[in-house]
Amino acid sequence: MTPIWEDLYASRVAGMKSSAIRELLKLTQQPEIISFAGGMPAPELFPRDRFKEATCRVLEERGEIALQYSTTEGWPELRQMIGRHVSRYGIQVQADDILITTGSQQALDLVGKLLIDPGDKVVVGAPTYLGALQAFGAYQADFLSVPLDDQGMTIEPIEALLKRGPSFIYVLPNFQNPAGVTLALERRTALVRLARTYGVPIVEDDPYGQLRYEGEHLPPLYTLDAELAASEGGEANVIYMSTFSKTLAPGLRLAWVIAPRQVLGRLTQLKQSADLHTSTLVQMIAYEVGHGGFLDEHIQTLRGVYRERRDAMLGALDSFMPSEVTWSSPQGGLFLWAELPEGMDSQPVLAEALKEQVAFVPGSAFFAEPSDGLRFMRLNFSNAQPDRIQEGIRRLGGCLGRLRPPMSAPEPSAAPTTG
Amino acid sequence: MTPIWEDLYASRVAGMKSSAIRELLKLTQQPEIISFAGGMPAPELFPRDRFKEATCRVLEERGEIALQYSTTEGWPELRQMIGRHVSRYGIQVQADDILITTGSQQALDLVGKLLIDPGDKVVVGAPTYLGALQAFGAYQADFLSVPLDDQGMTIEPIEALLKRGPSFIYVLPNFQNPAGVTLALERRTALVRLARTYGVPIVEDDPYGQLRYEGEHLPPLYTLDAELAASEGGEANVIYMSTFSKTLAPGLRLAWVIAPRQVLGRLTQLKQSADLHTSTLVQMIAYEVGHGGFLDEHIQTLRGVYRERRDAMLGALDSFMPSEVTWSSPQGGLFLWAELPEGMDSQPVLAEALKEQVAFVPGSAFFAEPSDGLRFMRLNFSNAQPDRIQEGIRRLGGCLGRLRPPMSAPEPSAAPTTG
Repeated sequence: MTPIWEDLYASRVAGMKSSAIRELLKLTQQPEIISFAGGMPAPELFPRDRFKEATCRVLEERGEIALQYSTTEGWPELRQMIGRHVSRYGIQVQADDILITTGSQQALDLVGKLLIDPGDKVVVGAPTYLGALQAFGAYQADFLSVPLDDQGMTIEPIEALLKRGPSFIYVLPNFQNPAGVTLALERRTALVRLARTYGVPIVEDDPYGQLRYEGEHLPPLYTLDAELAASEGGEANVIYMSTFSKTLAPGLRLAWVIAPRQVLGRLTQLKQSADLHTSTLVQMIAYEVGHGGFLDEHIQTLRGVYRERRDAMLGALDSFMPSEVTWSSPQGGLFLWAELPEGMDSQPVLAEALKEQVAFVPGSAFFAEPSDGLRFMRLNFSNAQPDRIQEGIRRLGGCLGRLRPPMSAPEPSAAPTTG
Repeated sequence: MTPIWEDLYASRVAGMKSSAIRELLKLTQQPEIISFAGGMPAPELFPRDRFKEATCRVLEERGEIALQYSTTEGWPELRQMIGRHVSRYGIQVQADDILITTGSQQALDLVGKLLIDPGDKVVVGAPTYLGALQAFGAYQADFLSVPLDDQGMTIEPIEALLKRGPSFIYVLPNFQNPAGVTLALERRTALVRLARTYGVPIVEDDPYGQLRYEGEHLPPLYTLDAELAASEGGEANVIYMSTFSKTLAPGLRLAWVIAPRQVLGRLTQLKQSADLHTSTLVQMIAYEVGHGGFLDEHIQTLRGVYRERRDAMLGALDSFMPSEVTWSSPQGGLFLWAELPEGMDSQPVLAEALKEQVAFVPGSAFFAEPSDGLRFMRLNFSNAQPDRIQEGIRRLGGCLGRLRPPMSAPEPSAAPTTG
């Protein structure tokens, strides 16, 4: 086991989960590594020239504002632009319904701070986003895990969990991180109804919804809930969040939350005590880069390139993976999720893969109960060119071929090897 | 009372203190207001051209890095630059002793998250920085207040408070916000010794130390403590924080924490779950702007301008204030602290001043026990030209003259008017 993972597990014992992904980033900065780890957008697609022009314009025309303190809620023009942007994905809100955050990670942190007292329960997918486990874990949440299948979070187990009084349900509806699956429409409706029935809020984390490569966009839980509130009465029950990290640039640290006004007011107070406000300069640059149709155009470009990379990875998996390995086939987003045969553990696979200059994130990191994830690997396809993807998957397939247990040999122990 | 203050007090009742200063910012964005509120640097002094050049260079030469995710600890070149910078103020550390934060407010938030469980005690000055009360209050701290005099936090009451087992002592040693006073050298030594004796950490918040207009720089508590640890043994006991908000630009949201390695490791984990990392772009811009001597040169410029504004405010106070009003005479920083005669309350004064287009922050906001601050006003002198300062203080003096109780009249009630 590499020191990265020792660190991860040591810190989990201490009740606080270090982000394996962030730690891996340090390693994968080495250019010779073919990295399927991280969730990094393709840097060669960053619209650098547009950023340069935008920044010059902001500093020339409104530099005294861009470099000064600003309000916690966020830069008004940016909030208006986000309002127009989300309307194209089915969310109809005003600028005042939107709070700018320092990345979606801050939105998760603020939600945790508002809704979690030590020992409170939170319903999450198994698997789910590592950074959410980390953010909610820092407030000492207990996790209630719901299995996923190829239609997203399964609904059948949820009602029993809602009876246990969780603080909220955390859902990534589109091209879920890490599993790549999308929550089916009938499940969205069922989930929203159940949550309203039991008075349990939904936290809808949607960083990838804009990056769909095939099929039709599905309505956000936020919207389905708002329609029910309008037709049947009652309060809105969904906190929605999305980000510019996968569309413009993650280095900005710029995202947003949409929530019922009284909730947004509390989140705004908490943000004020957390960092006063998100960088004025960054907000004004993002507005200047994104407005006037550029954001939509750029998303079209990204969809084309990432679709090609997804297809390259799917093709390479078909060619090079041992037959016992299976994987998801996502309609969008940045990740594939591969499952190893019974008895295999992806952590020794990572150790072996790193020797061949290939990186991925072992599945355990994405489960509230890490031992549930031993047989999984998360594979990012956005950050490497198709030929590199093909070469990396070829090497990974080789590692798996060497490490898989012989069919006739005795079953190896399934116990975690991390202790 | 304006809605701003209703909001402030309503939210404090709910256990969470809204920042009066941030709310006031919205009001003071109106250009006709002469604002002594906020703690805003002079925007006309922002080095906009240098920012423009720096940003172009960063995006041209290293755009793919600047717009990408980066590590939680912070951009290495920036941490090295900060290491060199603080060495000129008496702190000798390596880049690895430094964590970049999204403004000092995030540093306060992370310290609160690490060190405060609900009901824990925190020793603070009376008065102290509003944003610290807000950050620590969000973790349900109980505050133990120590009176200040013109030499800073008084030492005599502290030993009894340390016996009550507080989580830490929060100190602004230089040109304290809001009182403008500087902690005397013998008090620094005594405080560091007491804290070590009782095993209570010190959190040293130093946003203003670089902006000294007269007198000699005093050694940081961090350094005095490190010297004791070196000569007498034992662990280092001070968490130090400072910021670029008062030297380069607050709109960056960029600051740093220096702490013993094991503490810094925990703070880094908490930052990772709070916002992954501070904007890569912002960090690289700040390095590009500040390095090669520019930061020091620019601080020299700021000192000259702010010294003049401080002197303009001191002169205007001498000319226009009723004789019963007194004020601090700070050697640096951004604030003066004025005390009204017995029986007066600064909140109705603010209401009156706003009618004459003058704003300040009433003292109550800076006390853990707001009723202790009724007779105080915080006056910022960095954000207005000398002639505007003179005019604003003239109007404020007029308000105070009209509102002060006649010498022979019965004493008005000193009860809070906040409902």
